[in-house]
Parts: sequence; structure tokens; C-alpha cells
Amino acid sequence: MGISYLLRRAVQIRANHTALIFRDRRQTWVEFHDRVVRLAGGFSALGVVPEDRVAVIMDNCDRYTESLIATPWIGGVVVGLNVRWSINELRDALREAGPKLLILDDANLEVGRALGSELGIQTIFAGEATCPDHMVGFENLIATSEPAADVGRTRQDLFTINYTGGTTGRSKGVMLSHGNSVSCALSGLADGLFTENAVYMTAMPMFHTGGIWPFVSCMSSGATTVLLPGFDAENVLKTIQAEKVTESLLVPTMIQRLIEHPKFADYDTSSFTQILYGASPITEALLNRALVALPHAKFVQCYGMTELSPLAACLHHENLIGKNREIGRHKAAGRSIAGVEIQIVDENDNPVPRRTVGEILMRGPNLMTGYWNWPEETAKALKGGWMHTGDGGFMDEDGFIYVVDRVKDMIISGGENIYSVEVENIIAQHPAVQSCAVIGIPHEEWIETVHAIVIPHPDATVNAADIIAHCRAKIAHYKCPRSVDIRDEPLPLSAAGKVLKRELRVEFLAKAGAK
Amino acid sequence: MGISYLLRRAVQIRANHTALIFRDRRQTWVEFHDRVVRLAGGFSALGVVPEDRVAVIMDNCDRYTESLIATPWIGGVVVGLNVRWSINELRDALREAGPKLLILDDANLEVGRALGSELGIQTIFAGEATCPDHMVGFENLIATSEPAADVGRTRQDLFTINYTGGTTGRSKGVMLSHGNSVSCALSGLADGLFTENAVYMTAMPMFHTGGIWPFVSCMSSGATTVLLPGFDAENVLKTIQAEKVTESLLVPTMIQRLIEHPKFADYDTSSFTQILYGASPITEALLNRALVALPHAKFVQCYGMTELSPLAACLHHENLIGKNREIGRHKAAGRSIAGVEIQIVDENDNPVPRRTVGEILMRGPNLMTGYWNWPEETAKALKGGWMHTGDGGFMDEDGFIYVVDRVKDMIISGGENIYSVEVENIIAQHPAVQSCAVIGIPHEEWIETVHAIVIPHPDATVNAADIIAHCRAKIAHYKCPRSVDIRDEPLPLSAAGKVLKRELRVEFLAKAGAK
Repeated sequence: MGISYLLRRAVQIRANHTALIFRDRRQTWVEFHDRVVRLAGGFSALGVVPEDRVAVIMDNCDRYTESLIATPWIGGVVVGLNVRWSINELRDALREAGPKLLILDDANLEVGRALGSELGIQTIFAGEATCPDHMVGFENLIATSEPAADVGRTRQDLFTINYTGGTTGRSKGVMLSHGNSVSCALSGLADGLFTENAVYMTAMPMFHTGGIWPFVSCMSSGATTVLLPGFDAENVLKTIQAEKVTESLLVPTMIQRLIEHPKFADYDTSSFTQILYGASPITEALLNRALVALPHAKFVQCYGMTELSPLAACLHHENLIGKNREIGRHKAAGRSIAGVEIQIVDENDNPVPRRTVGEILMRGPNLMTGYWNWPEETAKALKGGWMHTGDGGFMDEDGFIYVVDRVKDMIISGGENIYSVEVENIIAQHPAVQSCAVIGIPHEEWIETVHAIVIPHPDATVNAADIIAHCRAKIAHYKCPRSVDIRDEPLPLSAAGKVLKRELRVEFLAKAGAK
Repeated sequence: MGISYLLRRAVQIRANHTALIFRDRRQTWVEFHDRVVRLAGGFSALGVVPEDRVAVIMDNCDRYTESLIATPWIGGVVVGLNVRWSINELRDALREAGPKLLILDDANLEVGRALGSELGIQTIFAGEATCPDHMVGFENLIATSEPAADVGRTRQDLFTINYTGGTTGRSKGVMLSHGNSVSCALSGLADGLFTENAVYMTAMPMFHTGGIWPFVSCMSSGATTVLLPGFDAENVLKTIQAEKVTESLLVPTMIQRLIEHPKFADYDTSSFTQILYGASPITEALLNRALVALPHAKFVQCYGMTELSPLAACLHHENLIGKNREIGRHKAAGRSIAGVEIQIVDENDNPVPRRTVGEILMRGPNLMTGYWNWPEETAKALKGGWMHTGDGGFMDEDGFIYVVDRVKDMIISGGENIYSVEVENIIAQHPAVQSCAVIGIPHEEWIETVHAIVIPHPDATVNAADIIAHCRAKIAHYKCPRSVDIRDEPLPLSAAGKVLKRELRVEFLAKAGAK
């Protein structure tokens, strides 16, 4: 049973209920359906057949959402690319995914057109300005196309490819099936999220599963989604007040910016009663401030990852307050949602007892089918049929899991996953660099930021600004180091010759504290 | 992902929460798990291997529930047989299902032992008395067996075979997979049923999906189930008060007996806040009385059938009261649950417009894989991938379906489905009968009862009591006619030679009204 069924049901039960709000454009479920099936007809006329990829480089908007559903309607696979990526990163992903169409908005027009022309991909203009030459106009496509029939995808068929940072400098395309997405949507409902009267606000980008999952969930219950093009704290406050937003998934950095906004108190946020947060841990200080600033709201932590479509565990509000808080339950990442199985294992994948730290493994109907064109990485990640999350943690006697360490060498900055090795590979390409290491360091707003330690060649000189500029030319800004230490002593190594990152972090913090 | 995962999760999140209450026996989820895996080990030692059937002829009890989960733990398939069936009906089903084990309680010992010995099936005694000779004792099996490893069933693997009345005199074994059952359990949760703090009371028999589904749902949320051996109104009231029961699935006949019980007001039923009802329509009069008698309760109508595991649509409380009631929404059967798709079609399976009557078709992850050993009936029922429910109805503009007629010739008496043709075949075997027809007639308590119209051979005489006695010797009591008209005029026939049952019903009601 595919995504298309969810849309048909939304039309059956809530034809005239608002489906989407984007700026001053609103559409009901029946209007959304009618646009989607015509758009699907247009894609079809442009040659898209089942299994074909359709890539999107756009900020959130109604047309993004329409593309997300129109593509699988005719059996295609949506490839949403990160708008913050560099042209090199976008090129690599487009080459790998090989899409038949590339959909662009105003903000991503220039880079997208260049890549489309370079790689010979038909581009579609879904922006607000006039459609440029040699591009197909999105609205024109809808206006002139016949509705397409639903090709009827099954549970196993591919729905999206979502790129995540790669451990080897190459991004991994996470393949999520229709079944993955539908089961994750229903699990959300089973956990009390996205109920039919919700007015859900999407501040997370639609190229993330954190943006896709809530929309698919709202489609499954017939709820309303308000799309924001990006996160602007005052615009979020305005939108909550104007649309009586009830629910949103935010990363802790966003919650902080929201409640610390100087005009926070000027807006009526009383409708905003369910706040999902995830992607990175929330500090105790921020949680306390948020509970005070938004007294009507229930907070629900969502733990997961792209490979899990993304939801795998939830920590409900009652664990953040009162007696549960006294026993430290607010520090948990959550409890497996109904439908998802968790195991904590040792280095041989054997289960460990409760409260013993090990790697967190997960499986369930939300588990990806694999990484696009990458069987070796797929086999490694899914060894024994379980997703190896790379998070170290333990489980308490009530099934709550606590994340205590990352087994994988990854930094989470403002909700974005950054693999250290990807950044290290870029820095190492600088001619003056002999060796380097990248670590995450604490940051008040972004939780962590990227810090590089660089050892130059004996005969070379290089400074922090050089390294940062070098990285910015090659990878997305959010992945680039925000600070760089140039040093002469060699990096601390383990007996096996591995860089001891933990020691580097301790060194950094000691120096930072000494200042 | 199979049923076993749900039990593991229940143990992870609620190890010491009460799982099952039966009479004075209580067990937590970890205790239930430990008994189940040892029982599975015992079944395994008795030769049960994946795909083998294990049949159960028992009233509801904790051991029934343990058998229900232990069997799939080692890959077996549970065949729960109707305890109200005649020995002939049981024999037919056992022959067809070919189980390796047959589990019996005190009440069903005699008939079960006879059949076990006749058909060469190893019998297990799960009753309260001393274990008879040549039978394996259930408790002994648990005490002396090693825990079995979970064989790890997939979504497609068979979990249960549930027999429903057959249209041709042969009962149909509905094959439900692990995926069917798990998805139905999660859909229930998504609709707000069986939440983790529920104390669910099972009054429906465990050989029905109406008994299995709620238990599997409670296992998926870690809730408590109170098992009743059968429906006794005063015992139900006592149990609600003693265990603070919050929720139960009842058929309308049960609700009526409950609220009309002379001691109803003596018991505290304030905990009983969510009453699911289904299997047959509720009359307006009964609904009104129930709303008054149980003012704290929310009523939720559940529409479905064995072939749909069984839940397919829900009608929530808000539709039974206020404005929704004024527009007649309380007469609906409900709206498709998230995950299930509904279509109303004409006789060529083409969709009809809203508010046009047609046959109700359904599909989704809860749809059976087919009828056991019966490809022709499977192909007919699942034509085009949709379950042909045999119910005639229409859909309104908000996706609510209204059942207006049964396309299949079936009677629903006290929640049990009775196929007229099955009863007609039995009556026709009486030597004095030339032809006959069976119809459902209104009944205050059972909603419908079975009424037979019999035309004797010209040279024979027969009376109502003869016909009823003849039926009782061959089929379950609930299927037997409660009244019989002997007549001489031929049955009204359509141009195609089909008996016009609707005319017979009109005739019957006219006569009944004239009295």
C-alpha cells in the first residue's frame, strides 16, 4: 500500500478541509489532490516512468509538497537535495541519483540550471518569478496536463532517496520505501501526534525526513500543514498566532531562538500545544526555559534518523516533569514507538543487560531498504537486519533509552549531522596540511560546532582563515569548521594508530576553560 | 516483523505491569513472556515446526492467550475453533486444518478428546482439573520445557486461521498473517484505542478476531487484559468494578444485557469509559439507553470482519451525539481507519459517486492472505485485490460509510455471522423437506434470529420442532432456526429462479404485524 492511498483517504474524509497553507496560498485536500494528479500527468508526459528519480532543490513551499506526492503517484522516486550544499556536493548527488527531472525554485535557480545543463537533466521552474527560457513552468505543467492514474505502488517500492552526510566523503542516499513512510506516519498517529484537527507547522526542510514525515502523517489523518520556507523566529511567531498552529517539530536551536526572541511575548502562542523536538539533545537549561515560556505546550522528544524514516522513539511530556523528572527520565531519548524494536548490544552485536552501555540497534517497518547504489555500506549499516545507529546508550528498566555517546564520529550542529571524516578529507586536500582532525565542540545555540585541529607540513604555513575558506569553497557552510587550531605536536593516537578524539576534546575544553 | 516483537517490546517497556488477569491468576508482562517461551519450547519438543497448525478448543482463559503467542513464537499457526460448534463442524475444520496439536479445557474436553483420538492429533489438557491419561498437561509442559528461541516470523507469514461461516456449507478458514495482525493492532492505537494505561476486558471469544485483536493491541501498548471465560452480565459488572476496567469490545446484545441487568446500578462502572461495539448494528433505542446508563463512557463503533483482522472502520463518540447525531451520523458504520482503504462500487466493481449505494470494498495491510486451501473462494472474495465485504452501503461527503443492506445472504444474530445457505443445506437434508429458505427476522435482544420457511414433500408431514431438532443435531445451536413456517405455496422466485428473500421477509413482518 503506497503513499497515494493516504491522499485518496484524505480526500474521502476531509475533501474541503485545508491541506496546505503556504504564504497567501491555501488549498483543500481535494484541491491538493487535483493539482497533484495533473502534475503527475505532466511528469509522465515529460517521460517519467516508474522507478525514475525526480530531484528537487527548493526551499519549503506548496510546490515542493505537490512534487513529493505527484512523483510517487506515477511510480517515481523523489530525491530532495540539501539547499545548503555546495555545487560540488549537489553535482555528486545528482550524478549518483541520475534523475530525469530537476525541480528548482527562485533561490536555487542559478546553481540548479547550471547543473541541469551540465548533466543533461530537464529542469522545471517552480519559483514565483517568470519561467526562464528552456525550462518547463510548474504551473503551466499543472494547467495543461491531464490527470494521471495512480500506478499503485506496493509497500516495497521506493518512495524517496534522502541524502545524509557520508562517513567517507561521499554522501549516502538513504532509500525509503512507501511502506517505510506509511508505517512511520501511522506510528506517529499511534503516539498521539498529527491528529486530524492538528494545524502542523513545518519549519524543518522538506529535503529532510524531518520535513517529509510530518506531512505524510498529516495526510494520513487529514490534518492541515503550514509550510514555512525556512526558520525565521519572528515569522514563526507570527505564523503560530495567525494560523493557530497546534504542533511543530523543531530542533532545540530553533526552540531557543523562538523563546529568546525579543518579541516573543507580543505574540499569542496559546494554540501551540504540542512541540516535538529532535535531531540533537536539548540542554536542561533550555528545557526549563521552554517549559516556562510555553506553559500550555506539551513537549515530545523524537529520536530517530533518516535511515529510520526517521521516527524510532518518543519521550512524552510526562517524562519531562514531576516525579519522572526527579528520577532523570527527562534525560532519556525516549521509548521505542509501537512498531519499532530496539536492542542495545556489545561490540559483537550481543545484547547487553539493562543499564549497560552499548550500541543502539533498531529495526521495524520504518527501516530503510538500504543506501542507493552502495551495497557495502548497506550491509555494514544493516548487519543482521538491524540498523546500527552509531549511538552509544543504555536502556532502563522501563524501556527508555539514554544516548550517552556517539559510536560514529559525527557532529550534530543545529540539527544537521556532520561526519568528521568528510570534513577531514576536505581539509587534508589543502596543500599546506600534513594531518588534521575534526571534532565537535560545545556551542550555546548550535549545541555543537565543527572545530578542526591542523598540523601543517614542516615547510608550510597556513592559518585558520585559510582552512575555513578552503572548506567553504568545497562543502556546505554548516559543515565547515568555525574554529581551527594550528599545532605542531602530533595528534594523540591510540595503540592502533587511531586519532584519540576524546583526548582532543578534553584538551580543547581545558584550554577554553583556562581562557 | 512478527507478533513476537510486540511481546518483547511489552517486556522492555512494562516488565512488571500486569499483562493478564484471569480469575484469581495474574501475571506481569515478564511472567507472561517467561511462560510463553517455555510453552513454545514444549510445543517444539512435541514436534511443532514452522507452518504447523496448533488448534485450540477452549473458552477464554490465560492459557488460551499463552497458546496464542507461544505458537507463532516457534513459527506455528493458531487455529481457534468455535466452542459452540457441533462435533461435525469441529471435525470438518480439524480435518481441513490438519493441526499437530489440539489444546482443550475442561468444558471442551470430551468432544476434543474424541476428535483427537479419531483424527490422530496429540491433545493437550489446559483445564483446571487433573490431566487425563494420554494427554499432555499444559502446566507440566511449561514447567519442564526449556525456553524456545523466537524463530522470527516476517510480515507475510501466517499467524492464525480463523473459521467463519461458509456460504456453501463449508466453513472458510481465514488466513491472517503476522503483518495483518500487527497492522490492525497499530491502527487501533492510532484511533485512540488500547492505550498503555487501559485495563481491557475481553468478553468476546478468543477464537474470534474480536477476541484476538484487542489482546494483540494491548500487547503492542503494554496494557492490561482481563479475560472473561464468557459473557455473564453480572460477572461483567463485578469485573468492571473490581479491576477498574476502562475498555471493552462488546456486541450490542451484550450492552443491552449489561445495562438492563437488575443489579446494574449496584456496581461502580465509572472506570468504564471507552466502549467499543461492533459485529452487528446497534438500534437507536439501545444507543439512547446506553448513553444514559453509562454517562462517563465514550462509545466507539468498530466495523470490520474476520477477513480484515477485523478492524476496518471506526465511528467515534462525537458522531453519536449533538450536531453530528442530528445529521444522522450515528447511523454510519464509521470512517476507514488510517491504513485501510474503502471503495463503494457497482456490480462491475466500478466506483460509484458519494451517497450512491453499492458494495463496500476494502483493502489495506489488514487484509487476509486468503481462505485456507480454497483458492476459488479466495479469488472471488479478493477480486482485484479488494475484499468484497458483501455489505451494501454508501459513503457520505466526509468519508463515513453507511451499511444499508447485505449483498451476501447472511444473518447476524448476537454478533455471530450465520450464512443462510449453510442452514438451508442442513434443513434440505431432512427427508420430509422439499424446499426451504432461511431468513433473518428482527429480535429485540439478538438483533436478528434465524427463521426458516419449509415446504414439505406432498406426501410428507413435518413440523417446526422436527426441523429445529434436525438442525441441532448437526450444527451449532446459534445457527439453528428459532422459528419455522411450514407452507404449501411455492417460494417466491425471481425471473432467474432465485428465491426472493426480501419478499419472504416482508411477508413474515406483515404476518407478525397482523397478529
